Formats: sequence, structure tokens, C-alpha cells
Amino acid sequence: MTDLPSDWTHKPRKILRFRPGTKVTDIDPVSTPGYTGDKSGSEAVQAERNERFAGLQEMLYANGKAGDNRSLLLVLQGMDTAGKGGIVKHVVGAGDPMGIRYTGFGVPSEEERAHHYLWRIHKALPPGGHIGVFDRSHYEDVLVVRVHDLVPPDVWEPRYDEINAFEKELADSGTTIVKCAMFVSLDEQRRRLAERLDRPDKYWKYNPGDVTERLLWPAYQEAYQALLDRTSTDHAPWFVIPCDKKWYSRLAINELLIEALKSMQLSWPPADFDVEAEKKRLAQA
Amino acid sequence: MTDLPSDWTHKPRKILRFRPGTKVTDIDPVSTPGYTGDKSGSEAVQAERNERFAGLQEMLYANGKAGDNRSLLLVLQGMDTAGKGGIVKHVVGAGDPMGIRYTGFGVPSEEERAHHYLWRIHKALPPGGHIGVFDRSHYEDVLVVRVHDLVPPDVWEPRYDEINAFEKELADSGTTIVKCAMFVSLDEQRRRLAERLDRPDKYWKYNPGDVTERLLWPAYQEAYQALLDRTSTDHAPWFVIPCDKKWYSRLAINELLIEALKSMQLSWPPADFDVEAEKKRLAQA
Repeated sequence: MTDLPSDWTHKPRKILRFRPGTKVTDIDPVSTPGYTGDKSGSEAVQAERNERFAGLQEMLYANGKAGDNRSLLLVLQGMDTAGKGGIVKHVVGAGDPMGIRYTGFGVPSEEERAHHYLWRIHKALPPGGHIGVFDRSHYEDVLVVRVHDLVPPDVWEPRYDEINAFEKELADSGTTIVKCAMFVSLDEQRRRLAERLDRPDKYWKYNPGDVTERLLWPAYQEAYQALLDRTSTDHAPWFVIPCDKKWYSRLAINELLIEALKSMQLSWPPADFDVEAEKKRLAQA
Repeated sequence: MTDLPSDWTHKPRKILRFRPGTKVTDIDPVSTPGYTGDKSGSEAVQAERNERFAGLQEMLYANGKAGDNRSLLLVLQGMDTAGKGGIVKHVVGAGDPMGIRYTGFGVPSEEERAHHYLWRIHKALPPGGHIGVFDRSHYEDVLVVRVHDLVPPDVWEPRYDEINAFEKELADSGTTIVKCAMFVSLDEQRRRLAERLDRPDKYWKYNPGDVTERLLWPAYQEAYQALLDRTSTDHAPWFVIPCDKKWYSRLAINELLIEALKSMQLSWPPADFDVEAEKKRLAQA
């Protein structure tokens, strides 16, 4: 029993799940795994799936209100221009702001640096009934930190296991974790950065540091390889999202969210009051 | 120079602004001040204005990224079923979750009660570039608190002045405050509560306490009168929103947000880097 649009030949949660042994260098960012449709048809599918997501999100929120402490956490990791912001706006944005908690994790503040790297992560976890969105995350502490040698290996090395343990605890306490590693090709990244430089309404998205990071691409690939190899677990698997086609990455992550919400087997919470008695009270009030 | 849809004969920020001397008992929740259109035409207008709001919200966010510390705070107050949640979902929800901070203020927690009533408010204020949404607010501390005698008059009485001073400080530090008092009639409220009792997917929105509050309507009217009389200031005026017609209240608050954002005279932040030099760097990277 599935309501997956017919353009999908495979369930995104199966075909996009990171398979042990997969090499990051073999990931093709322009591919559209499991999907036979094209861009022209994607808009209508996206609109319908936005609605589907919004309906499930509301049901999750309703359950939270009724005391269910389960939540969903979407973790978005990817190089600059991979499209994390677009996922937030065009996929998560279909939900109700009341039940969405967005957090962007940039360079840590002085206060954050004075704490354990998971300190700011804990503070941003979604309460029951909510969807949390991490735009970058604790994984920065084994990515940028590793690539730029911000701390020595004996500091970042134990973090993989620590993160697995942290996420296990999180999953055990009722949070469904959806981790998306978003891959954009260097060519497509160049086009997207160039567009930001061509349009004054996009300047604010441009950071000269992004170009510097391009030069470190091989080191990032190595860091992403370690991340996928070591932190894709049963309780919190990684999904590999090809992102050169924005319409595909949005459809794919939309489906991953829908599937995660469906896996919670939600239903509308029953009344915790006597419906008929309340109808009488209301008629008289 | 205005882009207000032609169905508006008056600017919402003018016609809906609370006028000293107005009696709460004279507010007609079914009216549609300043708007000549009807429900059938409202959907297209709403869709267009959602886009307009989203564009301005992105520009505010861009400026925040560029270091502008200005923000916008939408305060929603109203009796149960007035439609606060609908405003969040259908108006604010058109914006990007990345730049929206929603906070619902319910019965204070034990920790919150141990602090000054503005403590939890301060914690939820929007950072620069963000839109904060308060679903209920510090005004609960002169509404429900007053109606239910939760603290004696000599405790809540000084709060009006205190709130004005707090909001003045907030406005002076760059936050544009849009306060909406949402009025629904007792008849319409009954219909909306009855609908929640008729639909299992709405049970979660129903609270037997809502019926109890109906009986206190005159006391709430009195408390709202004092609130409007005493806290509608030049730096943070109240807008009175008739809410029996949901489509009208949504259009109205959407325009108030657009007007508030336009009053900030935002433009896309200039590049803080050398655009041509970056184009060259990028071409070589």
C-alpha cells in the first residue's frame, strides 16, 4: 500500500540509501535515481507531494499536542550551492511554521566554541510533534573541522562513534532521523556561484570563501566518504541525494520526509474528552 | 506609490488601526473594513499577496545576513478560534522557514513562572533579519491573568506601562512590531468549536476549557478594552482585525505585514566583495 507517484520506479528511501562500499567519487550528481519523470512534469508532482507532506506534518503536530513525544529531524549536509536552502523553502516550507523548527549551523559562536560541539545541537532538537531542520549540523565537526585541521585528528576521530551514540539515543527517545548528503558537481556549483555573481538579488548568498572551498573538494570528498562509511547506521542511515537537478533533489527529499512520517503510523489523536457531553455544553454556553 | 490590490479602498494599516475611544463592544467581527471584494475573489488576491510577502521576507533575511539587525515581530492575540493558527499557516507560512521564528505562548511552565513574565518573551525575540511570530504573547499577562485573578490587580496593573516601555525599547533597537487583536463573534466561535467536535481530525484543536472561557466573554472584553486603550502606542499600535470571515482576516494581516516590511525601505544588500574579481577567481577555481 503506497501512494508514491507513478514516476518513481523505486522507493527513494531504498534507492537513495547509502550502501556500504559506495565511493563518493562514483556518485553522479546529475542522475535521478528511481525517477523516470522529467523537470516539466515535476512541478505538478511537487505540488501534490507538498500537500501530502503538509497533511502528515499537521498530524504529527496534532499528536505532539496530545502528548506524543515523537518528532522528526531532517539533517541537510552538502557543499555550498547543493540546494539546502531550496529544500528548506520549497519542501519543508510547505509545512506549518507552527510545527517546524529550523536551525542553521554556521561557524560556531564564541559561546558555542566554549562548549562541547553537541551542545548547540542539543539545544536545537525538535520537541515532540515537531519537525526539526538542521541546515548543516554536528557533521560539520567531522567535515570542515577535519578538512581545515581546526582540531587535531585525535579530537575529531572519536566523534564518529560519539555521533552514532548520540543519534542512537535520539532515535530511541522517539526522534526519526532523516539524514541527507547532498551532492552537487563542481561544474554545476560553478554555474550556481556564477549566477549569484550575476544577480544583485543573489549577492547576499555569495561568499568568497565558497570559491576557496572548491579547491579543497578532494579533501571534502575524503571527509564525506568517512562520514558515510562510519555514520550511516540502522537507526540513522544516510541518504545520498544527487543535486544537480534541483527539481529531483526536492522531489526526493520530499518523499523521504513523507516516508519517514508514514513510518510513524500516525493517526488523528482521539478526543481526551466526552464529545457528546461537550456538544451539549457548547450548545448551552 | 502603492501596490495594494484594487479591492482595498483604504490602507489596512490606517483603517484597522485602533482609534482611541473605540469600544470593543462596538467592533463588528463580521465586517470587512476597507475591502470591497468577497470570498470568491479573495483566493487569487491571497495567492498574489503571499508571493509579495515572501519576496519582502527574503529581502529582510538577506539584509540580516549582511549585518542589518532589524527584524519584524507579529503579535497575534485573540480568543480561541479567532484564527491565529490560520494566520500562521496561510499567511506567515508563505515565507521561508529559514527566516521565521514561531513561538506559541501557552500556560507558563514551572520554569517560566519562576521568572519575570517577560523572560520567556525576551528569549523568543526574532534575531536581525527574521520575522518573529507570537501566537499569544506577553499580553496574556494582562488578559487571562486579569480575567482569572491569577495575580492581584496591584501586580498586573503596572504591566501596561511596563509592556509599553519594553516595546519602546524593542522598537528603538530595530524591531518593527505589528500587533493584531483578532475578534471573532460568539456565534461564529460556537460554529467553529462545533466543527471541531464534529470532525475527528479536529478533536486535537478542541479544549473543554474553551467553552468555559466563553462564559467569561464580558470580562475578556473589559480586559481587551484596557489592553487597547493602554498599549496602543505610536511605536507599537494595535490593529483590530474582524475575524468572522477568515479570508478577510488573512488578507488584512497579510497586508499589514507587507506594509510593515515596505516601511523598512529594504533593498538587496550590496556585495561586500569585488564582484568582477570574484568572477575571475571563480572562472579559475
